[in-house]
Amino acid sequence: MKYLIVGGVAGGASTAARLRRLDESAEIIMFERGDYISYANCGLPYYIGELIYQREKLFVQTPESFAARFNIEARVRSEVKRVNPEKKTIMVHNLALGGLYEETYDKLILSPGAAPVRPPLEGIDMEGIFTMRNVNDTDRVKEYIEEHDVKYALIVGAGFIGLEMAENLHECGIQVSVVEMADQVMTPVDYEIATVIHQHFKSKSVGLHLQEAVIAFHPAEDGIDVVLKSGLVLRVDIVLLSIGVRPDVKLAREAGLEIGETGGIKVNEFLQTSHPDIYAVGDAIEFPNPLSGRPALAFLAGPANRQGRICADNVVNGNHQKYKGSIGTAIAKVFDLTVGATGLSAKMLDRLQMPYKEVIVHGASHAGYYPGAVMMDIKINFSPENGKLLGAQAVGVDGVDKRLEMMSAVIRNGGTIYDLMELEQAYAPPYSSAKDPVNMAGFVADNVLSGKVKIISWRELKDMDHSKVMLVDVRTPEEFGRGSIKGAVNIPLDGSRGKYQNLPKDRTIVVFCAIGLRGYIATRILMQYGYDVVNLNGGYRTYSTAMAEQCSAG
Amino acid sequence: MKYLIVGGVAGGASTAARLRRLDESAEIIMFERGDYISYANCGLPYYIGELIYQREKLFVQTPESFAARFNIEARVRSEVKRVNPEKKTIMVHNLALGGLYEETYDKLILSPGAAPVRPPLEGIDMEGIFTMRNVNDTDRVKEYIEEHDVKYALIVGAGFIGLEMAENLHECGIQVSVVEMADQVMTPVDYEIATVIHQHFKSKSVGLHLQEAVIAFHPAEDGIDVVLKSGLVLRVDIVLLSIGVRPDVKLAREAGLEIGETGGIKVNEFLQTSHPDIYAVGDAIEFPNPLSGRPALAFLAGPANRQGRICADNVVNGNHQKYKGSIGTAIAKVFDLTVGATGLSAKMLDRLQMPYKEVIVHGASHAGYYPGAVMMDIKINFSPENGKLLGAQAVGVDGVDKRLEMMSAVIRNGGTIYDLMELEQAYAPPYSSAKDPVNMAGFVADNVLSGKVKIISWRELKDMDHSKVMLVDVRTPEEFGRGSIKGAVNIPLDGSRGKYQNLPKDRTIVVFCAIGLRGYIATRILMQYGYDVVNLNGGYRTYSTAMAEQCSAG
Repeated sequence: MKYLIVGGVAGGASTAARLRRLDESAEIIMFERGDYISYANCGLPYYIGELIYQREKLFVQTPESFAARFNIEARVRSEVKRVNPEKKTIMVHNLALGGLYEETYDKLILSPGAAPVRPPLEGIDMEGIFTMRNVNDTDRVKEYIEEHDVKYALIVGAGFIGLEMAENLHECGIQVSVVEMADQVMTPVDYEIATVIHQHFKSKSVGLHLQEAVIAFHPAEDGIDVVLKSGLVLRVDIVLLSIGVRPDVKLAREAGLEIGETGGIKVNEFLQTSHPDIYAVGDAIEFPNPLSGRPALAFLAGPANRQGRICADNVVNGNHQKYKGSIGTAIAKVFDLTVGATGLSAKMLDRLQMPYKEVIVHGASHAGYYPGAVMMDIKINFSPENGKLLGAQAVGVDGVDKRLEMMSAVIRNGGTIYDLMELEQAYAPPYSSAKDPVNMAGFVADNVLSGKVKIISWRELKDMDHSKVMLVDVRTPEEFGRGSIKGAVNIPLDGSRGKYQNLPKDRTIVVFCAIGLRGYIATRILMQYGYDVVNLNGGYRTYSTAMAEQCSAG
Repeated sequence: MKYLIVGGVAGGASTAARLRRLDESAEIIMFERGDYISYANCGLPYYIGELIYQREKLFVQTPESFAARFNIEARVRSEVKRVNPEKKTIMVHNLALGGLYEETYDKLILSPGAAPVRPPLEGIDMEGIFTMRNVNDTDRVKEYIEEHDVKYALIVGAGFIGLEMAENLHECGIQVSVVEMADQVMTPVDYEIATVIHQHFKSKSVGLHLQEAVIAFHPAEDGIDVVLKSGLVLRVDIVLLSIGVRPDVKLAREAGLEIGETGGIKVNEFLQTSHPDIYAVGDAIEFPNPLSGRPALAFLAGPANRQGRICADNVVNGNHQKYKGSIGTAIAKVFDLTVGATGLSAKMLDRLQMPYKEVIVHGASHAGYYPGAVMMDIKINFSPENGKLLGAQAVGVDGVDKRLEMMSAVIRNGGTIYDLMELEQAYAPPYSSAKDPVNMAGFVADNVLSGKVKIISWRELKDMDHSKVMLVDVRTPEEFGRGSIKGAVNIPLDGSRGKYQNLPKDRTIVVFCAIGLRGYIATRILMQYGYDVVNLNGGYRTYSTAMAEQCSAG
């Protein structure tokens, strides 16, 4: 058998290696347009920031090591220009020596990846404006920084890569600004979680221009003038475009393969394209999201590697291994914070018109009495009908990745908020609490679903006529004194329980504390006295962070 | 309604708080024999080690705060001496003022906990010999250390608490030795995982006496002479007994409640004892292990807290919430290492005569090219029939807790090794790899179950007649030169693939590399050439660690 693979990074290289393990006698050739195969794509920002200072560390495999270990020929600087599915041939452009040649195949695997979006803005091709897709791009950025006196940088687009680049340029001593069209950074998380990042950026003196867009780049005497929609002009020395990426489907489209509604190569559950001898993996494919059932793209390394394994099994032994799709688990380090998401955000659920409820909890990274415990924010979205966990997000200084893994495991399995309650965490004081924040999220959601508490979001409260409700801050007088919601009265939970019987019955009582826990206890008391009472989701912590942002944005 | 709770720590305090949230009007009284309620049991070793230096940090709640927040009366120094289930009364001994009194109840909840085992050894009541159950015990140990010139300490029993105490006494500048009857520390993990801890102890100069037991304590001029079974006598200044704990069921037994075969209070899935008005939670109950179906005890804070919540719901609203049992997820920090387990160990599976297969993988805590990546050891046990994950263990310097959580979530859900493959980890270079070690464990297990590779354990290899097999070390000549298995020939995978066709066909080939990955690739090649070949589980890393121990023990 002869297997050809187009694309030599993540998905392509994984597929190739697995093909060899399954079939020692096959001829396997992998074509890569760039200079390198199997490199650490996700490590590139850290090479710029010199946290990874040895360039060779970026290379997981080289064509030589791939040949020595797997007996696979990896042809770099080889761009596949055409596929002829009927003849089962490809045309390859040898970028090094020039010239086109043909290769035949029994099975073809496409792993072309995704290409950065470059909007047709005035001046976008100016020197000093970069996108980052591969090692060569990264080398160019690094060289530019080394050879120029780069003091100011602008990142266009506040997605995961944009923010990782912001951190890494900042580490190089560069003053960084970020421009983002949306009202928040990091699309996969909801506003309340993103605002924690916004605040953190302020503390790091990173400029953040939300609801803002670049309309042109103009050359300036010592740099680039970036003209923003608002009229603001930023003079910077370097621009990094990280607006987004798009599946690189030119080859697939021209070969007549079916392209899905999201713009990715359509594959079936065996990762087979519309042509039976052609499979596809990685960032370029479209596959249904397991939660929404809707076609989706996923630009993630983990799923790409899993796809490679499944694809190879199906190519060699016939279609028998099913890919299950990606729930979109993603994480990023942003300066001192870790932020991530798994499943569907509230924004996405709104767009899909899928009903959901949401709960925000704040919990300690480990037992509060053990040194180093820090608070994190967790938000979960779940079905109001059966408690199915639809999405989870977290942000904080420590232990965030672990909580995302726990919730990702539950979502991956089609689990519910009841499964969150039952998760048996590995508890000892340095690692967790007897009730882990993830358990707590489940407990709160259970209380909501079983009607033990009604909650209200910061946004609902913001939009409410405050004269028609009574706001009760149940924190201590000391906490109340440091700031509260305008119009709130302070009736501390601890010790003032008796006063809860004397509140007015003619309006809704909105109860809140710092993070929601005391508010919940107060809500339970008031409910049992017959009050119409709601607890503020996420407490004053979430409300004040989200509202501060609203004011500064407004 | 009137609810009485016996025991004011973890399970008892959780139940009480939840009872109040569900029933604002009930009378709730909690009785605690000791001086304190709701303290940080798991934090006590760290208070000795002064990592927690403020004593008040140990107290989550006090009787005063419990009254103020929950309107619950917590009576400390109040020992419940008798329960009369027919009359629905208890007799309470007021330890502070003396005298017995009666209290009636509608529902009674028992949370008596577990008591440390104190074997009837000669001299065990001598000054300087302690067990640690509660704050008072801890105060006594701390006082003893402060008032005596403690240079040498002996820990009897190498379970989780014993090893945490070893670390904390070491932090106090005390020379620590540990005596353990088994051939390994930490029963919940298997030998290969425990040996990593044994080696670490050596590096910390902690004396470890395995397969050894105390037979007597003798007073000595300046300390205690501890006589061991082997005849060895250790002169120490303090002894901590952490041999184990037993459910404290005297009260329950005398009340005529059913006691299970493990010695715990028998409860149904609603946490109700054999008497309908009496419930029980915490370390004292017996409940079926969800994996084995056999009655089991679990001395864990997480499950105790969950039980409290479920129990309260059933007490107030009638039996409707089912407890699902504990899969025994446990973790400990042991000096620089983290070690833990979830589900059933191979030892336990052997005892239960449940068939299983096991796989050992070594993986990096995060992407190898990002600074700070360190290797960890993961072992999984799974069903040979359907791949159901039966147990998982891990040890390492970083990221171990997270991997245990991921595997605990899969086991908790009744999942399989295929679910491990599908876990969608939160991947960015600082947190994970594109193929997380947990995914890798699933991949290897899948290869084993699907017959793509046969593996052999270090123990099977040890017991094998090496003249009847051919040992092939597929690492590089440099690695081979630093030490290998006696009798092995070195045929490196990379570049020497051709030589694999010329091996003798008359015997089994045992292939190994450093951690199992290259060995697997070599195994796949050899299998396809028709060899009878097995790959060494966990590679030379596991073999050499486990065997070093065997030699030093032998």
